[in-house]
Amino acid sequence: MKYILMLLFGSFVSNAQITTEQLNLMPWPQNIKLSKGTFALSKNFKVNITGNPNPRVFLGATNFVRRLDGRTGLFLEQSFLTKVNESPEAELQINCVRNGKIEINEDESYQLIITSNKISINAPNDLGALHGLETLLQLLQNNNTSFYFPVVEISDSPRFTWRGLMIDAARHFQPVDVIKRNLDAMASMKMNVFHWHLADDQGWRIQLKNHPKLTELSSDGYFYTQDEIKNIVKYADERGILVVPEIDVPGHASALLTAYPEIGSKVGEGKITYEVQRNSGIFNATLDPTNPKTYEILSSIFDEVCPLFPGGYFHIGGDENNGKEWNANPEIQQFKKDNNLANNHDLQTYFNMKLIPMLKKHNKKLMGWEEIMTENMSKDAIIHAWRGTNEGQEAGGALIKAAKSGYNTVLSNGYYIDLMLGLESHYLNDPLPKKIILSPEEKARVLGGEAAMWSELVTPLNIDSRIWPRTAAIAERLWSNAEVNDMNSLRKRLKTISFRLEELGITHIRNKEVILRNISNNQDTRALNDFSNLCEPLKNYKRNGGGKKYRMHSPLTLFADACNSDASEALDFNLAVNAYLADKSKENKVLVTDFFKKWIAMNSDLIALSANAPLVQPLLPLSKSLSDVSEQLFLLMDKKQKVNQVLLEDLLEKCNTRSPADVELAVYGSLKNLSQ
Amino acid sequence: MKYILMLLFGSFVSNAQITTEQLNLMPWPQNIKLSKGTFALSKNFKVNITGNPNPRVFLGATNFVRRLDGRTGLFLEQSFLTKVNESPEAELQINCVRNGKIEINEDESYQLIITSNKISINAPNDLGALHGLETLLQLLQNNNTSFYFPVVEISDSPRFTWRGLMIDAARHFQPVDVIKRNLDAMASMKMNVFHWHLADDQGWRIQLKNHPKLTELSSDGYFYTQDEIKNIVKYADERGILVVPEIDVPGHASALLTAYPEIGSKVGEGKITYEVQRNSGIFNATLDPTNPKTYEILSSIFDEVCPLFPGGYFHIGGDENNGKEWNANPEIQQFKKDNNLANNHDLQTYFNMKLIPMLKKHNKKLMGWEEIMTENMSKDAIIHAWRGTNEGQEAGGALIKAAKSGYNTVLSNGYYIDLMLGLESHYLNDPLPKKIILSPEEKARVLGGEAAMWSELVTPLNIDSRIWPRTAAIAERLWSNAEVNDMNSLRKRLKTISFRLEELGITHIRNKEVILRNISNNQDTRALNDFSNLCEPLKNYKRNGGGKKYRMHSPLTLFADACNSDASEALDFNLAVNAYLADKSKENKVLVTDFFKKWIAMNSDLIALSANAPLVQPLLPLSKSLSDVSEQLFLLMDKKQKVNQVLLEDLLEKCNTRSPADVELAVYGSLKNLSQ
Repeated sequence: MKYILMLLFGSFVSNAQITTEQLNLMPWPQNIKLSKGTFALSKNFKVNITGNPNPRVFLGATNFVRRLDGRTGLFLEQSFLTKVNESPEAELQINCVRNGKIEINEDESYQLIITSNKISINAPNDLGALHGLETLLQLLQNNNTSFYFPVVEISDSPRFTWRGLMIDAARHFQPVDVIKRNLDAMASMKMNVFHWHLADDQGWRIQLKNHPKLTELSSDGYFYTQDEIKNIVKYADERGILVVPEIDVPGHASALLTAYPEIGSKVGEGKITYEVQRNSGIFNATLDPTNPKTYEILSSIFDEVCPLFPGGYFHIGGDENNGKEWNANPEIQQFKKDNNLANNHDLQTYFNMKLIPMLKKHNKKLMGWEEIMTENMSKDAIIHAWRGTNEGQEAGGALIKAAKSGYNTVLSNGYYIDLMLGLESHYLNDPLPKKIILSPEEKARVLGGEAAMWSELVTPLNIDSRIWPRTAAIAERLWSNAEVNDMNSLRKRLKTISFRLEELGITHIRNKEVILRNISNNQDTRALNDFSNLCEPLKNYKRNGGGKKYRMHSPLTLFADACNSDASEALDFNLAVNAYLADKSKENKVLVTDFFKKWIAMNSDLIALSANAPLVQPLLPLSKSLSDVSEQLFLLMDKKQKVNQVLLEDLLEKCNTRSPADVELAVYGSLKNLSQ
Repeated sequence: MKYILMLLFGSFVSNAQITTEQLNLMPWPQNIKLSKGTFALSKNFKVNITGNPNPRVFLGATNFVRRLDGRTGLFLEQSFLTKVNESPEAELQINCVRNGKIEINEDESYQLIITSNKISINAPNDLGALHGLETLLQLLQNNNTSFYFPVVEISDSPRFTWRGLMIDAARHFQPVDVIKRNLDAMASMKMNVFHWHLADDQGWRIQLKNHPKLTELSSDGYFYTQDEIKNIVKYADERGILVVPEIDVPGHASALLTAYPEIGSKVGEGKITYEVQRNSGIFNATLDPTNPKTYEILSSIFDEVCPLFPGGYFHIGGDENNGKEWNANPEIQQFKKDNNLANNHDLQTYFNMKLIPMLKKHNKKLMGWEEIMTENMSKDAIIHAWRGTNEGQEAGGALIKAAKSGYNTVLSNGYYIDLMLGLESHYLNDPLPKKIILSPEEKARVLGGEAAMWSELVTPLNIDSRIWPRTAAIAERLWSNAEVNDMNSLRKRLKTISFRLEELGITHIRNKEVILRNISNNQDTRALNDFSNLCEPLKNYKRNGGGKKYRMHSPLTLFADACNSDASEALDFNLAVNAYLADKSKENKVLVTDFFKKWIAMNSDLIALSANAPLVQPLLPLSKSLSDVSEQLFLLMDKKQKVNQVLLEDLLEKCNTRSPADVELAVYGSLKNLSQ
């Protein structure tokens, strides 16, 4: 009797045959062959592992079981997998031929076969097996009462070998748990490189026992101990992820020079000192490339940093050296002349070349931002392309130039997720655009790409919402076939992918509500949430244009921090407007005017809310403008009443002026289209 | 023009004079003198520290500034406080006479004086100053546009010196970030003891370099490294919190004996082995008190554990030794005879007494659960009272007995937050009940109390919601005057306190939505949320009665995990019913019937939701019963139609049967009252 409802429903709903298009896979696999039929999950479901894998696959399989259990509530019996062939009778059989290595160009392929009573994952090594488990989790389906997998055959491998995420832990320190949960999320998107930006003008974040001054003077107490570093490197290894550390030199060196001012390039009266920066921006602090002590200290730093990171790459930054200190220092100028170094670029190359043997000693290749690519730079270096139109350069031009010049290279231009641009700009940014003709050798030098999370405006509270879900789109661009580029499919799949990231501890959804609750002063957040779904944070560094509005200790608990790119309701509204403009049917009109009604009510709610919430005040001008425009457009559309076109345009422009809340109205374009 | 709304509102709303009752302080201070007037906060607000404090106050003050900034969005200018008298002109002046010590009976008093243009905190040491800063944050007020503090004088100090929270990291491991955020929350509630349960039948959680087997064999890979332990002890110290480690012996020893079976008491054929337990419950695994090797190993373990914890206390557990292995072991029985030990209690005392010098060597006092209090036990031990009516004992009886017998003692009976009982049961549980007469010396031996978070049914996802906000009520019981015991005031203040815990990273509010989203399969969670506010998880271990339904790897992502004690809407409904039963006015009737309408609609919504969410199915029987009862009672009340009383009672009882969702309907009592 108790379960009568379940029984009733159960008899009506079957495991309906699904289509490939219905699968919410990301990154999209290379080959999928869906067949009829399903594999039903039960409490007895178990996993067995055979072959000669690295033990990381046991942890991966254990976590797989736990995640499946968390989603389904099945109370699966298997607790921990610890060795090969523990449960020969298991329904899921994983076979890994050999131990996978955490390095670039390792084979990451896998084959996943689901039949109605058995699942197998076959992979050359455990890295592919881990990818296969992520794909399997994404295949989980349900009807009203139970969970199952579709019968399918998938064979899969990545298009690019370098699929990275950079996190800047220097500007705003990001604690261990932030890094770990993002490593989990990366692994779920089959990403394999974590680039860790550990030192910049705003802080030195890695404990060095031979150089305690660095954290004592330049970290404000926020740094990773060596044990934490080792712990994270191990955590990454267990998830198939290579860690690439970055110590940014010779520029971006305020923190390093605060501890060691004697190797800076600054000249002046009295004792030279430097300070950890509290603002954003490009600063002058630059190492002195003519001072032997510079190389002594760097070499000693590298000697301590390198052994913490078993991977084969070391990022030395090398970007945005503005040359001001060098130009103002007569001894450095004399050194250039004495050594036939024509300009600061050549001087920086001189500096960079000195670092290569220091890293080679530890079996590390030097990687640097694209500025290191000068005429005399070693072809062993990896060029990290980042500049684009914002910097007055051709977007990704350095990547192509590097590949043609014989360098291995990685793309980050177009993947700067801190710019708060929309999904599309990242997703359609192919490292190998069709219009560029490269030889097979040149193409092979394009290793892949990296999402770049610079941290001027992120703290542990909001960082996940800046990384995810957009980075999943970048992960797909780097893994999947170039022809997989349909925005509608991406957006549809991303709804599920984004939701599932929560189970890995990613806070992008939950922390939005936390920020809104604080803004509301613990009142009802519905109107705030509705408004946040129409607004996007200012893009392209406009929010912190001069780098001085938000200092490193400024609050990032504001409305702009709760908003995100690709504002969800704005997307819906834009669709409705396009439909209406194409066909002014009554239904299409109502679709649009319902938004107007909602926004007019929302504005009233926000005003009511603000009576006890000072942080709501900065939102009101924009909300009022939207409400006013909505009223006018409503009149125009619904009652066919004449509206004052001058007034309307004036109101519209108010929707397009910089809001004191540092957001922009993502419906502005559609409102403008409607008004014309 | 842009801010015209702000200006308009600004001119209407002033900083209205508030009353003491309106303050949301917790724990309630000993003395408050509220006056007219306010201190207005501005961007220039700064903090200055004078005296001879421990540096922890600089971090505390820096965090204070950051939290104030996050709440107000003021962009306060001060970045990091690092030394004494950095900003002599600051509006907030903190003076600490001396360096505070992290120990029991340290002076934790402070005085906080707010005038219209200056704030001062004076304290004998930094510990009091930190408490004063928490009180100041709680005093923050706002009108519609700005933030301010009321003019007030507060002098404050704790009633009990031991105000603790125990977290069991053995049954479900709780990672470093879980511990750290809870230490922050504890400090905000002026709690000063973190009792860390590190070993039990289900796992050994502390790395020992001299005993690597313990974590290799008995942790499943989930343990704290020594660096993590040190890091947490430092974090606690910075927040004025003493850390008391617990290694539970001689029972609860399955994990210890999995690594060292040779010191167990089990007898049998062949090689004796033990296993880490996957279930809850009381197990037989017990150390052999007659084996010299037992003391050798324990002494060596203590030698490594003790130096990690600078505090003066070490908890040896000592609870729930069922004696089965001892009884079955002829050699142990013989040993008892040979040593004139009348029973197992005496044998355990023999064992316990051997531990005292091992701990004394490290300047640690032995603390243990109340079972250690036997006739011959040293009076130096601290007795931790925990048993009550659940265990067939007088509630808290051991506390009184201990105090009368000359032991220092701490109360946890009545503070077992894992029982999922309501706020009231904890809040009104005074360590010194009025009816008990103790001498001043005896009273002084009652050091205080500890909330106990046993972790059979908690993971990092839901643990915060089991600890908070209820532990805040316990913190108030232990800090504030015994006369502060009004439930209405507590509930009112707790709404704000609970919300503010979010800024410290506590996830009790945000993670509820995560769990519901998973249950809903990423559909609208509103109906689920509404239902969760009517349901409470089964209490007193009924959810996992035999200890076998939920094993240590079972999913805790279910509806019961999203529900909590003190179900919020149930409280509202109960009030409405009481009002209606006292006065059957039309208004009071509508208050009640509106709930019924909502619940009938909610049931339909849940059924709709369940079509694509198997995890909703187990909720439907209870939701349907509530809907059915609501319909009947609605008819009875609204339309004065006759209802079939037998049918109604039958339906009511369905609201009172064990739900497959492991929750109970918190409105059952009021429904029953209405039906009669």
